[in-house]
Amino acid sequence: MLPASLQTLIDELSRLPGIGPKSAQRLAVHLLRSPHQRIKPLGEALLNLQDGLSFCEHCWHVAEQNAQCKICNDPHRDGSQICVVEEVLDVIAIEKTGHYKGLYHVLHGVLSPVDGITAEQLKIDELFRRVDNNLDIKELILATNPSLEGEATALYIQKHFADKNIKLTRIARGLPIGSDLEYADSATLQKALSHRTDF
Amino acid sequence: MLPASLQTLIDELSRLPGIGPKSAQRLAVHLLRSPHQRIKPLGEALLNLQDGLSFCEHCWHVAEQNAQCKICNDPHRDGSQICVVEEVLDVIAIEKTGHYKGLYHVLHGVLSPVDGITAEQLKIDELFRRVDNNLDIKELILATNPSLEGEATALYIQKHFADKNIKLTRIARGLPIGSDLEYADSATLQKALSHRTDF
Repeated sequence: MLPASLQTLIDELSRLPGIGPKSAQRLAVHLLRSPHQRIKPLGEALLNLQDGLSFCEHCWHVAEQNAQCKICNDPHRDGSQICVVEEVLDVIAIEKTGHYKGLYHVLHGVLSPVDGITAEQLKIDELFRRVDNNLDIKELILATNPSLEGEATALYIQKHFADKNIKLTRIARGLPIGSDLEYADSATLQKALSHRTDF
Repeated sequence: MLPASLQTLIDELSRLPGIGPKSAQRLAVHLLRSPHQRIKPLGEALLNLQDGLSFCEHCWHVAEQNAQCKICNDPHRDGSQICVVEEVLDVIAIEKTGHYKGLYHVLHGVLSPVDGITAEQLKIDELFRRVDNNLDIKELILATNPSLEGEATALYIQKHFADKNIKLTRIARGLPIGSDLEYADSATLQKALSHRTDF
């Protein structure tokens, strides 16, 4: 019923995560009515996205093609600390705080037997090799999400390093800033109590 | 902090309606990790979108370049009825019901003095000319949204045709199917009562 080029765009948009058929229709019609110079950069950005990009072979964060990522490349970063995160977006979130000066390791997912995701599909072996072969690394901050899968993945990594001479830490779990104790779920409240700090 | 091509994509995505900076980041990282053959069709669909498309010069629905739209072109449609809608998406929604066999007229918006949108920016004059010059048109179904602006636009159109020999109707407003009278807002309930039909 719709012209083919519009239908193609709707189909392609609705494949993106978090965009259903209705949102895809709405976006496509918005784009159709936008001036051409507003759409062109988006189309080109998509086509060029992967050409110049790859993943850093040290930490698996995004990097320019055939290069270390900007963080690994920065001589001011502290090479003795590695913060292990699930996703590229987690690196961006931590970098925004401006309080972490060490390096990262992006796992690109979490262990999830239900979804058939095992250690081989993540960058876990790469983490083991990286840390085992580099005696400068003194601390591993396990910053996977405080979810069931995130905790399991942190535990899996912790087991590998249990008998090795490296400090393992886990990001603090507790009440988020600005939240209300009264409305906190009991698992969070329990963590907040058992991990209480000196005043 | 991010490679330029990734940042460009995030910036472009976050300009789309309903996509904030966080969703744009999430989409961009998803696209980055997708195989190239999954991204290419989307990029190309965007670049090619407007090349082959324009708006039908009769009803202002989307159409292939330099052609009538498929609905105006269909000899089985009833040319005596015109359904006046706000957006292209409204045509798609009504077509999905499969119960309307007439033609359409897409206004491409509604009158909204607050947003500075006057009749000149819509396809209202085109509607007046289309109907005034075509004696085959017997009924105009005003199917603008049951919102303040939609009602005002319907009223504006109704005034033009008030002393002319054409039947004007408005889509029914009442309780939506599957809804609960108890939770209906009073404006809807009032319409549902005053527009009650014979049992």
